[in-house]
Amino acid sequence: MIDSKEKVQYFIDLQTKIVAHLEYIDGNKFITDSWTRPEGGGGTSRLIENGRIFERAGCNFSHVLGTKLPPAATEHRPELIGQSWEAMGVSLVLHPRNPHCPTVHLNVRTFVTESGVTWYGGGMDLTPYYYYQEDELHWHKICRQALDPYGADLYDNYSAWCDRYFYLKHRKETRGIGGIFYDDVSTDQAFDMTQSVGDHFLPAYCPILLTRNEQPWTEEQRNWQLYRRGRYVEYNLVFDRGTLFGLQSNGRTESILMSMPPLARWTYNYEPEVDSPEHKLMQRITR
Amino acid sequence: MIDSKEKVQYFIDLQTKIVAHLEYIDGNKFITDSWTRPEGGGGTSRLIENGRIFERAGCNFSHVLGTKLPPAATEHRPELIGQSWEAMGVSLVLHPRNPHCPTVHLNVRTFVTESGVTWYGGGMDLTPYYYYQEDELHWHKICRQALDPYGADLYDNYSAWCDRYFYLKHRKETRGIGGIFYDDVSTDQAFDMTQSVGDHFLPAYCPILLTRNEQPWTEEQRNWQLYRRGRYVEYNLVFDRGTLFGLQSNGRTESILMSMPPLARWTYNYEPEVDSPEHKLMQRITR
Repeated sequence: MIDSKEKVQYFIDLQTKIVAHLEYIDGNKFITDSWTRPEGGGGTSRLIENGRIFERAGCNFSHVLGTKLPPAATEHRPELIGQSWEAMGVSLVLHPRNPHCPTVHLNVRTFVTESGVTWYGGGMDLTPYYYYQEDELHWHKICRQALDPYGADLYDNYSAWCDRYFYLKHRKETRGIGGIFYDDVSTDQAFDMTQSVGDHFLPAYCPILLTRNEQPWTEEQRNWQLYRRGRYVEYNLVFDRGTLFGLQSNGRTESILMSMPPLARWTYNYEPEVDSPEHKLMQRITR
Repeated sequence: MIDSKEKVQYFIDLQTKIVAHLEYIDGNKFITDSWTRPEGGGGTSRLIENGRIFERAGCNFSHVLGTKLPPAATEHRPELIGQSWEAMGVSLVLHPRNPHCPTVHLNVRTFVTESGVTWYGGGMDLTPYYYYQEDELHWHKICRQALDPYGADLYDNYSAWCDRYFYLKHRKETRGIGGIFYDDVSTDQAFDMTQSVGDHFLPAYCPILLTRNEQPWTEEQRNWQLYRRGRYVEYNLVFDRGTLFGLQSNGRTESILMSMPPLARWTYNYEPEVDSPEHKLMQRITR
């Protein structure tokens, strides 16, 4: 039998803490939607639409159980064939209305097998519509603080991994300005490190959100945000392994697609004017 | 050497004819964007944005050349290894502004190898936001007329293929109300049949478009359209083989993604009221 109590409790508490904080900031309540899965386990989706700050914000906790590891998981580890397993985690995407406020993504998760083999994965990455260097410095400083206690080279490695992972090949763009990404980590400290990532999310994001939300915005800036949100859709539906795996494996579609923006625009061959604020963002993320 | 002149001419003429007709209907001109591909060949994209009827409408012609067939193409035909090839076709997606007007997709294409082996594929399918039985009857009647001269069972087969192909597994919905889909057809009549499909597009779609465009629409109906357009995005980015192949093979991104709607909305767990017009559409496409 798998003893996952401590892990489950951490993820539930993280979701509760983050949602309470975001509700305080927004001034509106998130709805709560709990669901179960015929194959075992379930989850709770917390969501707000048309809030004061958040046009759409979702934070999912899920804990799913299986009686037999899928072939993909045991391909390189035949000793695990036939074992039961649990997967759990918290996944969040926030889409503020103000185009000066960046969209943000957080995910922390673990996978445990019957014999106790455990993997961790996760990270957080920031997707601004306008580029502010001071926001980037703050974001990456807190990302580094989350990882430094667990290894001096972790931030450099996981930050580079983040840029590689959140890359739109067909656009030659990163999704945003990066952060942390890691997967399949099973070191002794992996659970502590994963908790640290989860716990550093609010201090990394909220100061940026609250500062930028004070800036007024124009219809043109709003249109640029909607256009850039189209890239978020493209990334999540074409490249994101979590989204595709979820959709292909009978996951709960509405919870998986809580990451979609509330409204997105596509315009043919749009290129911002050279030296415009929009162009400055493109220079930062094109590679 | 491949002699593809007759085919190329058909596809160019089809694009010209369709665009001229749509320009007349809309009252505005399509832009023309021609491009070449470093590996050989190129194409012409014709597009309108913010037209009178069309919020976004794109019609691509492309003709790309290769010196060596890719491994996927020769896996089951080793006799073709190393041959040069050409692929060409016309691909169209129209997104009218009025929610009573359906979105429509047409694609006709062919693939030719050096030794003359030739495949055809294509079809057309209709994606309404509101369900009108008389529109469906007209649409499928013309689809049948396009295919009947080439085999009594073709319409039944290709119409069923269309429903299977344009299926959103994670939503348990077809993309729309179907039409025609076929692929890898290399019968003697395949080119004639493909021309017939292309030539039947305007009579199949335009009467529906012009009739529905006379109906006034409300903000609520517009929101429903934007919400349903989210499904179009999901289908094209998660399932459509043409789109994914294009994006993964260094195709011209802006031409491939001309199929995206100009504006799309996502709303959590939205379900139309029972017996509403929106619900009637869902009943038609849920399976």
